[in-house]
Amino acid sequence: MVKAMVASAQGGKLAPQEIELPALGDGDVEIDVTHCGICHSDLSMLNNDWGFSQYPLVPGHEAVGRVVDMGRAVTHLKKGDTVGLGWFSHSCMTCPQCMGGDHNLCPTGEMTMVGRPGGWAKKVRCGAEWAIPIPKGVEAKDAGPLFCGGLTVFNPILQFGVKPTDRVGVIGIGGLGHLALQFLNKWGCEVYAFSSSPGKTDEAKGMGAHHVVNSRDPEALRKLTGSMDFIISTVNVSLDWPAYLETLAPKGKLHVVGAVPEPMGIPVFPLLTGQRSVSGSPVGSPTTTSRMLEFCGRHGIKPITEHFPMSKANEALDHLKAGKARYRIVLDMDL
Amino acid sequence: MVKAMVASAQGGKLAPQEIELPALGDGDVEIDVTHCGICHSDLSMLNNDWGFSQYPLVPGHEAVGRVVDMGRAVTHLKKGDTVGLGWFSHSCMTCPQCMGGDHNLCPTGEMTMVGRPGGWAKKVRCGAEWAIPIPKGVEAKDAGPLFCGGLTVFNPILQFGVKPTDRVGVIGIGGLGHLALQFLNKWGCEVYAFSSSPGKTDEAKGMGAHHVVNSRDPEALRKLTGSMDFIISTVNVSLDWPAYLETLAPKGKLHVVGAVPEPMGIPVFPLLTGQRSVSGSPVGSPTTTSRMLEFCGRHGIKPITEHFPMSKANEALDHLKAGKARYRIVLDMDL
Repeated sequence: MVKAMVASAQGGKLAPQEIELPALGDGDVEIDVTHCGICHSDLSMLNNDWGFSQYPLVPGHEAVGRVVDMGRAVTHLKKGDTVGLGWFSHSCMTCPQCMGGDHNLCPTGEMTMVGRPGGWAKKVRCGAEWAIPIPKGVEAKDAGPLFCGGLTVFNPILQFGVKPTDRVGVIGIGGLGHLALQFLNKWGCEVYAFSSSPGKTDEAKGMGAHHVVNSRDPEALRKLTGSMDFIISTVNVSLDWPAYLETLAPKGKLHVVGAVPEPMGIPVFPLLTGQRSVSGSPVGSPTTTSRMLEFCGRHGIKPITEHFPMSKANEALDHLKAGKARYRIVLDMDL
Repeated sequence: MVKAMVASAQGGKLAPQEIELPALGDGDVEIDVTHCGICHSDLSMLNNDWGFSQYPLVPGHEAVGRVVDMGRAVTHLKKGDTVGLGWFSHSCMTCPQCMGGDHNLCPTGEMTMVGRPGGWAKKVRCGAEWAIPIPKGVEAKDAGPLFCGGLTVFNPILQFGVKPTDRVGVIGIGGLGHLALQFLNKWGCEVYAFSSSPGKTDEAKGMGAHHVVNSRDPEALRKLTGSMDFIISTVNVSLDWPAYLETLAPKGKLHVVGAVPEPMGIPVFPLLTGQRSVSGSPVGSPTTTSRMLEFCGRHGIKPITEHFPMSKANEALDHLKAGKARYRIVLDMDL
């Protein structure tokens, strides 16, 4: 039994409780959690916004800690290794996606906080494939947000072939966006931040944006017509998608990583005339996670975080709900 | 002055008339037209469906004939060469798209039948860059439909990296689709035809489909869940896009080349969870045209055509409007 922050029912407050961990499989590791980030999808899962939450629910899928136990089949990790764990806890390891290196696309992949307790607990268990060692140069206390927020925006940069010569945009300067700006700046791109909060202009520039565009100003968007090679949208609300499509250069790509509930209304002509595309993606593979961490270490990229004790998870969630998080909250273990 | 089939006003019948050709620029060629295909977009342009038709209008953008004159800057073609001409008549040759080999994405490209007379005329003029020599192994009398219908489906196969190991689908077995099936079969793919006309099953298999799916049967689509790597939609009406997205494998692509007037309603979750994308494209570049023609020659791919004399263009259009074209109409010069 280990202590965890538990929500007993949909939308309920979290309370510290002793929970049972799932059995440690031959290929599993047990992580002694020292820190865990808060992602907007923790909120969505607590509220069962997506319909697949299971209660009692222990949130948390940006966990960092030390390996303290492992199944007998685990050979590439050792006790004491500092690792991180993100959205997925297990992949089947044998389907074409897993065998092809795309474990994040495994159709039967298990999720860290669905049907099993997540990272807001003293200990969390997962398949060793998803426990990714944190390299030198990356601080464990602030690394948590990289494992979901960071990976979610790093993955498409790699997967969709963004080039250092590209003009790129990031919509939404929050937990994901503030990392996307840093990645793309160090990727060598010309970086535009699209934000509805004019107050974030200076901060966005500090994160690597070369230009900050007021996304509520249609004229500002119009000035960019036909110029952007890649835009990543990190928000989970519907936007004026046709207006963003118009900003794309020929062959430009509009990529969404935010879980927008409504269908996107995509006009066909801008796709046809400019060979443009609209795409999405979920987090990234274990290998992509490692590459991201290495990239962060080499370039001094790190999440901008606020810390709360894990026992104060409810207060931390309120802070997030109020839109006050700058830019990602990390819970420090005190259970 | 040359004889042409001319529509004086929107939706009007065509009549043979003498027309003035535009000036022959230094980089232009003049083609003595022997054949010209009918594309569905000739109909759309005659009806001004897209709002940029100019009258009097001479349709035709699948022209084939012999070079009979050229400007002084043209050095790579010679009189007597058999060439084809498609949707574009000119590209600027200096913008990043032209310089990068994507002349079909030139933002200031001119169109063969917009503001200048198209290919339903004794002669047609165009920039030499868009007069593409027809190689040995490709018959001039049936080559016209390759220059728009064929190119439109060949281009995305090349541009979006379709692999011979892919499972691919073609929606709509008409002028474009019947060529897409042939291309994809010879590309080495496993090919599915999606058709609402069960009567076309045997013919679709003859064109290279390994499987024919009744696109009006939701259950038939459901059976393909998560399996298709690439689907190209050649129709210009709205379909159940979410149902087709569900048929896509992880990393699968839904590509549209039909000018669907309504926005596509694209649910975000299938994009996110499977790293899927929705894209479009317009015809292809001159180099892609040459590669397509060479591929056709090597593999014996050719349009299935019906021939009408050009003077009977109105009857030919009625045949097309009635949905009777099997599968592409070519007008033979008799003006």
